Amino acid sequence: MSGWVVIAGLGPGDEALVTPEVSAAVQEATDIVGYIPYVRRIAPRDGLRLHESDNRVELDRSRHALEMAAEGRRVVVVSSGDPGVFAMASAVFEAVEAGPDAWRALEIRVLPGITAMLAAAAKAGAPLGHDFCAINLSDNLKPWTLIEKRLRLAAEADFAMGFYNPRSKSRPEGFGRALDVLREACEPERVIIFARAVSTPEEELRVVRLSDATPEMADMRTVVLVGSSLTRVIERDGAPWVYTPRSVPA
Amino acid sequence: MSGWVVIAGLGPGDEALVTPEVSAAVQEATDIVGYIPYVRRIAPRDGLRLHESDNRVELDRSRHALEMAAEGRRVVVVSSGDPGVFAMASAVFEAVEAGPDAWRALEIRVLPGITAMLAAAAKAGAPLGHDFCAINLSDNLKPWTLIEKRLRLAAEADFAMGFYNPRSKSRPEGFGRALDVLREACEPERVIIFARAVSTPEEELRVVRLSDATPEMADMRTVVLVGSSLTRVIERDGAPWVYTPRSVPA
Repeated sequence: MSGWVVIAGLGPGDEALVTPEVSAAVQEATDIVGYIPYVRRIAPRDGLRLHESDNRVELDRSRHALEMAAEGRRVVVVSSGDPGVFAMASAVFEAVEAGPDAWRALEIRVLPGITAMLAAAAKAGAPLGHDFCAINLSDNLKPWTLIEKRLRLAAEADFAMGFYNPRSKSRPEGFGRALDVLREACEPERVIIFARAVSTPEEELRVVRLSDATPEMADMRTVVLVGSSLTRVIERDGAPWVYTPRSVPA
Repeated sequence: MSGWVVIAGLGPGDEALVTPEVSAAVQEATDIVGYIPYVRRIAPRDGLRLHESDNRVELDRSRHALEMAAEGRRVVVVSSGDPGVFAMASAVFEAVEAGPDAWRALEIRVLPGITAMLAAAAKAGAPLGHDFCAINLSDNLKPWTLIEKRLRLAAEADFAMGFYNPRSKSRPEGFGRALDVLREACEPERVIIFARAVSTPEEELRVVRLSDATPEMADMRTVVLVGSSLTRVIERDGAPWVYTPRSVPA
């Protein structure tokens, strides 16, 4: 039996958002590898080995998965959301490129999932209904100056935006600076959506204007969406709907 | 029985990429509304009415769905990919905002799906593994000057990029102009992925350098991915893997 690595996206939390393709791969696996809370989403069964690891050890985890596949095991690396969006897929290929030539002969497949930004957008309406960008606000792996530059250019391009990892205990300051950049570049009425723990029992959605946005509205489990200059809010009883029109007038 | 509208993403084509949440909504529906090829993906059954409509009538289709829901029917508007990404969700909310107040009291939910850009990225490896943007290259609903501006700013920000609707029979010229903009802004070795009909039997993936990219490599069923300046190609027997590293050196 030849081994393989599948890097699979579990979506934002709700099991009804896991694709049948991902569920089938998990059923065929001999080993599950991933960050602790994602591995705990997989139902244990006889013969399935669960390998939990901590945050920030993505390369070690990738090498472990590749080594096991080279020994003939069928390994699923689990990510939340989509594995190709600020998740495990890049780390695995980074390990492949730096690793032994034999790893290039392995079967490696990436199975897409529902990424947090698009799950959040769906809950709010259609705020990313026109051209948009996705920016990871963590400066763990890139300089903060690049994040600010991208924010300014994205605002100038009038993209709607999705921010991953806006704020954490170890990075309490960055998101406030990101809001400052937006305040310089955008009108105060710009629509901001704070979407926390989307599709889980702790889900919270909050729609505010840029002038009212504060850093404390985001935490580690929040995805932040920023509308374009054309984004609309439809007021109604209950939570408003937010959408970005398909058309831009000439 | 009170009616509702669900705007559901069917993913790029493979039924194994349809989420259980979407499948459940289709099972509960009394009416399916959508562009002909997407409605034809739904299995007919007794009591389910299928309403096929042509391309470019998104607002009419939305109003029809909302009218039926207001009469108590359970309507699923089907999109390919994710309904919030260049698909039906924005059109429905546009119709709500312009329509009678009663429509604001309707239950309207958007169910996310696997969008073509992320399905294509997964097939290629992890080319969108760092900050990225999504741009619709059709100038049917926005001026071409805005598309060029966004391309230039996205290249300056060094985003990876995903292009929807790069080229069609009625718009044969635009994509060549987009490639010209990229050639002015990026190095000739920039990685370009042409991903056609991803997850269907007609799937084709082609990885080239910007200097070798030609307009004819894209058609209506193609999503084009452009790497950032750091995107890597891992050569191997068979199709290469493409990924964008998680880190940007200071």
